[in-house]
Amino acid sequence: MARLKRLVLERLMRYHRLLSELTAKKPVQTITSAQIAKALDIDPTQVRKDFGAIGLQGMGRVGFEVCEVCRSIRVALGFDRNYEAILVGTGHLGGALLAYSGFERYGLRIVAAFDNDPSSIGGEIAGCTIKPLREIKPFIKAHKVRLAILTTPVDVSQDLAFRLVEVGVKAIWNFTPTQLIVPWDVLVRNEHISIGLSEIAYHLKEQAESEDEWTFLDT
Amino acid sequence: MARLKRLVLERLMRYHRLLSELTAKKPVQTITSAQIAKALDIDPTQVRKDFGAIGLQGMGRVGFEVCEVCRSIRVALGFDRNYEAILVGTGHLGGALLAYSGFERYGLRIVAAFDNDPSSIGGEIAGCTIKPLREIKPFIKAHKVRLAILTTPVDVSQDLAFRLVEVGVKAIWNFTPTQLIVPWDVLVRNEHISIGLSEIAYHLKEQAESEDEWTFLDT
Repeated sequence: MARLKRLVLERLMRYHRLLSELTAKKPVQTITSAQIAKALDIDPTQVRKDFGAIGLQGMGRVGFEVCEVCRSIRVALGFDRNYEAILVGTGHLGGALLAYSGFERYGLRIVAAFDNDPSSIGGEIAGCTIKPLREIKPFIKAHKVRLAILTTPVDVSQDLAFRLVEVGVKAIWNFTPTQLIVPWDVLVRNEHISIGLSEIAYHLKEQAESEDEWTFLDT
Repeated sequence: MARLKRLVLERLMRYHRLLSELTAKKPVQTITSAQIAKALDIDPTQVRKDFGAIGLQGMGRVGFEVCEVCRSIRVALGFDRNYEAILVGTGHLGGALLAYSGFERYGLRIVAAFDNDPSSIGGEIAGCTIKPLREIKPFIKAHKVRLAILTTPVDVSQDLAFRLVEVGVKAIWNFTPTQLIVPWDVLVRNEHISIGLSEIAYHLKEQAESEDEWTFLDT
């Protein structure tokens, strides 16, 4: 199977979420690409193409079997495997991620949290004890952890990334604004919490401007 | 100027962040589209096209003036305006968003937080007192708030969205997994905190599989 690109992976994730939600509400046996496309505001051809890329074929007008689609997506994306992660930086966002219970359905379990703030170390968030940063390398080696979640301040994240990669981390989920430099075989997934504001601020601006126009016409 | 599409807005946001970071580190006068493209792993033609869409023109080999680019993006996206938001649902994620100080640079200020949990109401997060949910409609009307941030449990979010829209909310930043139904002139921006896991899980799966192959060859 050809290597899947990032945007395909993200769309597969959206299909999976949609179908999980649907089936949580009521039993659904089959669904068409048109129905999925409409719910997610995507082109139906795109949906069929993405499904084709992971070996799914529809049954004419009947569409796709929901269970089969979910299962295929889980296998293609690797959610049927379990992978452990450590989290570094236990501020508000780190705490929110630790407490979030939705990751397990994607195979992810956060097994340890680290911080260098003495007032946080030894504390507990969502059942996870916060360990001192100096224990991070032995921990990763001992537990063969390959994923690290970074929610640290900007100035420490690059140095941390170097140290993590040294002991075998192969993927970094980066919630800091730093563009990390890593070896070619390490994946950095950058999350930019404010990015949605580009769309929101623009929408509010456009609306305010069109309201101004109407007010102008009124006078 | 033509209406900008979502992906253009998001790329403009990425350019803005990159340039803010660069200038925070050292004074930078000019930058070329090739340099920006390389730093963000985007095609240089795309960068020039996006800049063109907001009226920016480069100066041949010298490239673009960094200040000018930042200013143009801020104006195009509406970050030079101030807009107030309310937040509903003050669990871990809600608390993280309240405490995050990075939104103000994009014009956003969270002016009130609401919850229906009696043990949270009256408490304070990052200087913001948590109000009871029943006060939400009068508050929005009185303060003419047009943006709401939702970090509520799934089962209440659609009902809440209806109520918010009734009193004038024009944009919803939706951190819940619910696909909200709203009138056409209201923007819903869905954030899907787990979406990055599609790329991460897939990368780890591919790596594990290629490691297995090597092990197989060794035997």
